[in-house]
Amino acid sequence: MSSSKHISCDGHFDFLMNMLVKQRNSGDYCDVTLVAEGQKFPAHRAILAASSKYFDTMFKSQMKEKFEKEIKIKEVAKIAMEQVIAFIYTNKVLLSEENIDEVLHAALLMQVQDLLALVIKYLSDEISPMNCLHYHQLGKLYSLSDLVSECDPCIRNNFDQVSSKEELLGIDEVEMEKLISSD
Amino acid sequence: MSSSKHISCDGHFDFLMNMLVKQRNSGDYCDVTLVAEGQKFPAHRAILAASSKYFDTMFKSQMKEKFEKEIKIKEVAKIAMEQVIAFIYTNKVLLSEENIDEVLHAALLMQVQDLLALVIKYLSDEISPMNCLHYHQLGKLYSLSDLVSECDPCIRNNFDQVSSKEELLGIDEVEMEKLISSD
Repeated sequence: MSSSKHISCDGHFDFLMNMLVKQRNSGDYCDVTLVAEGQKFPAHRAILAASSKYFDTMFKSQMKEKFEKEIKIKEVAKIAMEQVIAFIYTNKVLLSEENIDEVLHAALLMQVQDLLALVIKYLSDEISPMNCLHYHQLGKLYSLSDLVSECDPCIRNNFDQVSSKEELLGIDEVEMEKLISSD
Repeated sequence: MSSSKHISCDGHFDFLMNMLVKQRNSGDYCDVTLVAEGQKFPAHRAILAASSKYFDTMFKSQMKEKFEKEIKIKEVAKIAMEQVIAFIYTNKVLLSEENIDEVLHAALLMQVQDLLALVIKYLSDEISPMNCLHYHQLGKLYSLSDLVSECDPCIRNNFDQVSSKEELLGIDEVEMEKLISSD
């Protein structure tokens, strides 16, 4: 009659992470504060390191940040840090044309792989004649070859509209030839 | 054309918690060690406090445990502590006739509500003529009135088999009358 059972509970991780968000709000058990453009983001080193190779490396290294309670992240905008922290702790991120460049930069820098995948998917889904040239440049800048390829047809098919945009000035001749050559 | 989207990633919390399990295995970012019957369980205070009122109170109080890196939990068996920690970090627990008493005791003591619900469900699902008297006593001991009520019919319907068991000796006369009176 002895019965062994492996059992799990729906929503346990959601509950646990929700409690960690409450800890962030009250500051309880937070052992580090990230600072981006003067805005402070209390957090748990263990959670940051679990989600981000960048923080794991920083906290394990002999860099001065290892020992500091407050760490300035100079390369990241506060609107991006807000979304990175939100994603790590809540698995929700708000992406928009207004923050997508900064969040992409932050996700790449901090190596938050799940977030990076969401950002690239957002960019792919949102390609339009209005932004295809800008997204193409973002893709080039960060070596996101899939994004670059996905922008190409939109640029070609809407060249009249696209060619009036300022970003075009930043593209060199060889690049331009590639963009307007047919499939 | 500006589109804002709330997006989330399937499996982000599973990934994050899996990384915390790896941190436990390597000891990285663990800031407390629980000790049960001499066995050591490295853990994160923030995670324990997020899952358990008992630990949250302990770590926030002025008890000496607040300041100690290694905390002896005298009231909990190591086979129970193993399952409590497994549940908190992996959302999986192995329940069996061999450990259910200890895990129930630990889940109640540490106030791990999600685990307690699983333990009570296990007990309810496993009621049989072999254990109904024992589970009835567990229910009485810990004021789990639903469990007690669920054991009652099994005891009445199998009184011959049940009455030969040692546990019956621990039940007083009034209790006995209640148990054998018809519905």
